[in-house]
Amino acid sequence: MTVRIGVFDSGMGGLTVLAALRKALPGADYLYLGDPARLPYGTKSGATVTRYALQCAKVLVERRIDLLVVACNTVSAVALGPLQETFAPLPIIGVVEPGAEAGVKATRNGHIAVIATEGTVRGGAYVRAIHARNPDIRVTQAACPLFVALAEEGWTEGEVAEAAARRYLEPLFEHAVPPDTLVLGCTHFPLLRTVIESVVGSGVNLVDSARTTAQAVAARIPPSAGSVAAPPAFLVTDSPARFARLGGQFLGETISSEAVELIDLA
Amino acid sequence: MTVRIGVFDSGMGGLTVLAALRKALPGADYLYLGDPARLPYGTKSGATVTRYALQCAKVLVERRIDLLVVACNTVSAVALGPLQETFAPLPIIGVVEPGAEAGVKATRNGHIAVIATEGTVRGGAYVRAIHARNPDIRVTQAACPLFVALAEEGWTEGEVAEAAARRYLEPLFEHAVPPDTLVLGCTHFPLLRTVIESVVGSGVNLVDSARTTAQAVAARIPPSAGSVAAPPAFLVTDSPARFARLGGQFLGETISSEAVELIDLA
Repeated sequence: MTVRIGVFDSGMGGLTVLAALRKALPGADYLYLGDPARLPYGTKSGATVTRYALQCAKVLVERRIDLLVVACNTVSAVALGPLQETFAPLPIIGVVEPGAEAGVKATRNGHIAVIATEGTVRGGAYVRAIHARNPDIRVTQAACPLFVALAEEGWTEGEVAEAAARRYLEPLFEHAVPPDTLVLGCTHFPLLRTVIESVVGSGVNLVDSARTTAQAVAARIPPSAGSVAAPPAFLVTDSPARFARLGGQFLGETISSEAVELIDLA
Repeated sequence: MTVRIGVFDSGMGGLTVLAALRKALPGADYLYLGDPARLPYGTKSGATVTRYALQCAKVLVERRIDLLVVACNTVSAVALGPLQETFAPLPIIGVVEPGAEAGVKATRNGHIAVIATEGTVRGGAYVRAIHARNPDIRVTQAACPLFVALAEEGWTEGEVAEAAARRYLEPLFEHAVPPDTLVLGCTHFPLLRTVIESVVGSGVNLVDSARTTAQAVAARIPPSAGSVAAPPAFLVTDSPARFARLGGQFLGETISSEAVELIDLA
């Protein structure tokens, strides 16, 4: 039987997680929900983000998913507990724990840098998740909100992206023992991977939470070998045409506007 | 009697309009409403923006304002008509018409450039407002969404802002007859005025829609000479502490967190 996986994010960033999931589990069916009418979540309060997340998850649960992936660092950081309580026993996997796990495994010198949105940094979820695994690891955090705007503008290379990456990242590595691992704690950031690597250098391990989350999901679901999956379906709260037009660069393949359904959560 | 002016915007950008209003009409009382729980409006559909705008205006009207300033280009562009119909006979002034008027007055060569958010550009409100005054004027538009992120990050000077300004603005002026007037069609953009001027050069007239809107309001209301106005009060839909902390750079003076009230529009 084909497994049906729900994926949700505030906007298009979670499509990098969907792309990684489809590589890890090509036989599953995917239903993606984006909430562009209310994005970004990263600058909103925990109470507001939790309320929005419960509304989004409810829509996916009503469409009979077998597993929910919270492909949004902000929601994973502040609302995973309420989601798991409300929709138990549905398995719900966020992006923070797999990213933290991969960071802890990757570091050799015990110093990890985490870059994320303002909300994720302020909430400290990565710090807690890393310290739950190893309290001796030093964690240096930085909010990089402009990276989100750069990814959405498609300016993932060139002078502006490079200058922004230098301004955000260089201070993170000005330590006697600089971090040897950098966790990309926002689903938009993998699009800037090349620029980020050029600033931090090849000596730093880059942890892409999209990829590590897909691996965590794959570990829980046996790949349904042989079944031919349908193309992913998309639900969005605003501007389906824009989602189809811009989402392709996050998903890594064209999104047909017929596959995008407008829904109302209000 | 003191006039009570309501000002609303999706977030903090409209504080540049409030600052200009207080300079033009220091004797009025001001009540500002920001809707950060649902910002940005600039990438959302017209129907969604109109629905949000009606909800925001209702709250201000219930608090007995004498005039409403829509300090948001996106809302002014798509929802001014519905607002005026719904709340007639309340005078409602947006930022698009005064900006267009000032642009038409400023141009000598008949070519105006307008920079704004994606929603404002797509809606074409500045083009319509300029052509209603003079159909022979050529209008060149560009969406500059990264300027919003730069203003909110406080990166209004330096390498990143300069590189972004060059990338957005230089193509606008590569014409046989380049524009001699540039309308800042987003309330965030006056914060980047210095960088914008350094790219376009001193030969280009910069029209700041915050300032031109304040002048349009002042023309309708006689300054209530002699009255001592209370400090402005603020209503926000999310994160009052963040609003107080970051809003100061838009308003040009410190915002006390006690002056910011959290409200729920949902």
